[in-house]
Amino acid sequence: MKRLYSTDAGFEQQFTRMVNDRRESDESVAQDVQEILREVRRDGDNTLRNLTMRFDKHALTDDPSSWRIGKDQCAAAYNDLASEAKTALNLAADRIRAYHEGQLPQDRDYRDDANVRLGARWSPVEAAGLYVPGGRAAYPSSLLMNAIPAKVAGVDRLVVATPTPKGEINALVLAAAHLCEIDEIWRIGGAQAIAALAYGTDSIDPVDVITGPGNAWVAEAKRQLYGVVGIDMVAGPSEILVISDNQSDPDWVAADLLSQAEHDPTSQSILITDDAEFAEMVEDAVDVLCAQLETRGVARKSWDDYGALVVVEDLVREAPALANRLAAEHVELMVADPDTMFADIRHAGSVFLGRHTPEAVGDYVAGPNHVLPTGRRARFASGLSVLDFMKRTSFIEMDEAGLREIGPAAATLAEIEGLPAHAASVKVRLK
Amino acid sequence: MKRLYSTDAGFEQQFTRMVNDRRESDESVAQDVQEILREVRRDGDNTLRNLTMRFDKHALTDDPSSWRIGKDQCAAAYNDLASEAKTALNLAADRIRAYHEGQLPQDRDYRDDANVRLGARWSPVEAAGLYVPGGRAAYPSSLLMNAIPAKVAGVDRLVVATPTPKGEINALVLAAAHLCEIDEIWRIGGAQAIAALAYGTDSIDPVDVITGPGNAWVAEAKRQLYGVVGIDMVAGPSEILVISDNQSDPDWVAADLLSQAEHDPTSQSILITDDAEFAEMVEDAVDVLCAQLETRGVARKSWDDYGALVVVEDLVREAPALANRLAAEHVELMVADPDTMFADIRHAGSVFLGRHTPEAVGDYVAGPNHVLPTGRRARFASGLSVLDFMKRTSFIEMDEAGLREIGPAAATLAEIEGLPAHAASVKVRLK
Repeated sequence: MKRLYSTDAGFEQQFTRMVNDRRESDESVAQDVQEILREVRRDGDNTLRNLTMRFDKHALTDDPSSWRIGKDQCAAAYNDLASEAKTALNLAADRIRAYHEGQLPQDRDYRDDANVRLGARWSPVEAAGLYVPGGRAAYPSSLLMNAIPAKVAGVDRLVVATPTPKGEINALVLAAAHLCEIDEIWRIGGAQAIAALAYGTDSIDPVDVITGPGNAWVAEAKRQLYGVVGIDMVAGPSEILVISDNQSDPDWVAADLLSQAEHDPTSQSILITDDAEFAEMVEDAVDVLCAQLETRGVARKSWDDYGALVVVEDLVREAPALANRLAAEHVELMVADPDTMFADIRHAGSVFLGRHTPEAVGDYVAGPNHVLPTGRRARFASGLSVLDFMKRTSFIEMDEAGLREIGPAAATLAEIEGLPAHAASVKVRLK
Repeated sequence: MKRLYSTDAGFEQQFTRMVNDRRESDESVAQDVQEILREVRRDGDNTLRNLTMRFDKHALTDDPSSWRIGKDQCAAAYNDLASEAKTALNLAADRIRAYHEGQLPQDRDYRDDANVRLGARWSPVEAAGLYVPGGRAAYPSSLLMNAIPAKVAGVDRLVVATPTPKGEINALVLAAAHLCEIDEIWRIGGAQAIAALAYGTDSIDPVDVITGPGNAWVAEAKRQLYGVVGIDMVAGPSEILVISDNQSDPDWVAADLLSQAEHDPTSQSILITDDAEFAEMVEDAVDVLCAQLETRGVARKSWDDYGALVVVEDLVREAPALANRLAAEHVELMVADPDTMFADIRHAGSVFLGRHTPEAVGDYVAGPNHVLPTGRRARFASGLSVLDFMKRTSFIEMDEAGLREIGPAAATLAEIEGLPAHAASVKVRLK
């Protein structure tokens, strides 16, 4: 864990190092992935059989249930949920749906002064593939956050790919799939699953967009297939930046910092405050709470390796500028006047205003998406939304009068660009 | 040039082959590009000097004007424009600006039934890099179409990178840069220019988003840097699909088909009609017009290699389904009732309604962006827009009552996902 004081001579250098530290695996998986994509493209189902046996110890056989998990199985998993879990999952789904319905874009269709009709029409993609990792990161909330925007967008076909190592299936994920009305669940994982969704195989029809978290191979496969399909942003380890004055309860701040730290050993939790004593109280609270957590192994390592306490002199003046440089995935503003500070924050995935808004409510039930840009990408990227599952078709309509008014300018520009057929296509109509 | 008749036995197979034919270079440039990115990242300006000498025969020296083109030079190029060109360029810029201003997204900020405040705030990226190719594809219209959406978005810093082979500068591009108020123009090109914009060098500050057309090296560099910066969609050769009944003038259709064919030998122009005789008349008209074009070399090769005449029986019933499978960049509907047909077209970059709307007006002056998805990517991608230069920050604010209402569900879900610190961050506030 690092301690940075803005009054220290080395502060600028230390902070810059923290901003530039990407914490992302430099593993050279690109070559492996390239080979897997090539194999799946060439040999489809057969490659899926081989790689699923090799990586997941799961046999894809002539029995269809070895390939796909049926809707009845998902319904059963949902019905088996404890009532508290069922209620919570439904509350989450309802609130996520309500928030995302407000993202549906408006079509445009108007005539301008030259009587030229212009517009844009949004439509959903036909099919979306949602990757759901096996193991530690198989979260039902993640399926909700990926599937509901697709559903709200109006996608016709929702396909999940998820590995079932040694045949093991995560019942919570199936329950969430039931709630989200997923059309197909394929028992495949890794780069080979992404390739199968993008290219299609004899068994699996291709999709148009692939979203969802995954390990380095999954992320690299998505990156390499960007352009063959649409993908969500490349995702790195989770981050939280808490900006707090000394009026917050240190236990609350500590819990919020640890809620990111427990995700992954490479997650990052940072506190910016204007009171060095408060920072120490938070540090103590982190130690106390961390020791009680079942996830303490991961949380401790993340906090020790990447955690930071940054003490500044003037929170209102200094913190927003530092926050913009970090461009963190999650930013909590635990200060007296969060609105004023929010006005100065330009780069952040999601902002949590005030002392009673722990980041975890955003992970599950608040409504906005929890798939957010990491690794300083909030400088240019947004959280997952309904728009990631839609596309826009612009359109133009003109009559002879309109063409006569603006067409000659097009012909002039075509000619100076050396494109005579472009010019001819206007002129031939105005003869 | 291919002739396909929907009544032929082999039609389905032939059409599928056309849909799957990507026409994109399989050149293995990935390795070269990877090496260039690594070198620029490590050795910045020095690598730019070496590669610019090697590829462009242009020396980047101690003289700043060898690196950058000044604003005075752009203003002079603009003032030197012939008055017709100046008027046309201004008309184009004004109309593009007006259309894109309508794309500015609405922020959201509301309280829901649980008195939870939710919203999303859009903000522009700080800096955008626009690539402008040298040589044949150095089009001022392309600079307008990339720069104006960025400007409308509110981007602070607009940077152009363009190669100046043997020192040669394209005056039209400079004039357009003046009109778009570009802040910096760097005389660099290729993958090294994209790397310099993404990583920054001692001379060049990094940008957040890179857009603009380029050759295979430029496109691959953007693809590899996706995630370090935001990029526009991977672009392939241009395409047009004209759907026309036999009431259109064959000369008009021929000019439109050739206006894409003249772009590049790998461009594709397709006519779908319901009259075989009309198709032949168009074919003849293509031959006549093509012979007159200065661009006939390129246009002829594109038409011969990739052009297609598709004759169907029932245009209204069959054409939209075929169009959706092609998901073409440009679709012209030269039919009696274009609106009805448009309602059936789901996948297209931009649609041109009626007989008096040649695609070329969309390239220059209509207003909508001419940077559009190619290579069947209209299935999932949209044309360039103001949104490509902005990002969304979601936000959440709740008080104790709101947290008491929805917080426990978050804690429940966190617990079943095995994330106790998430649960603790809610519970500690409700003690």
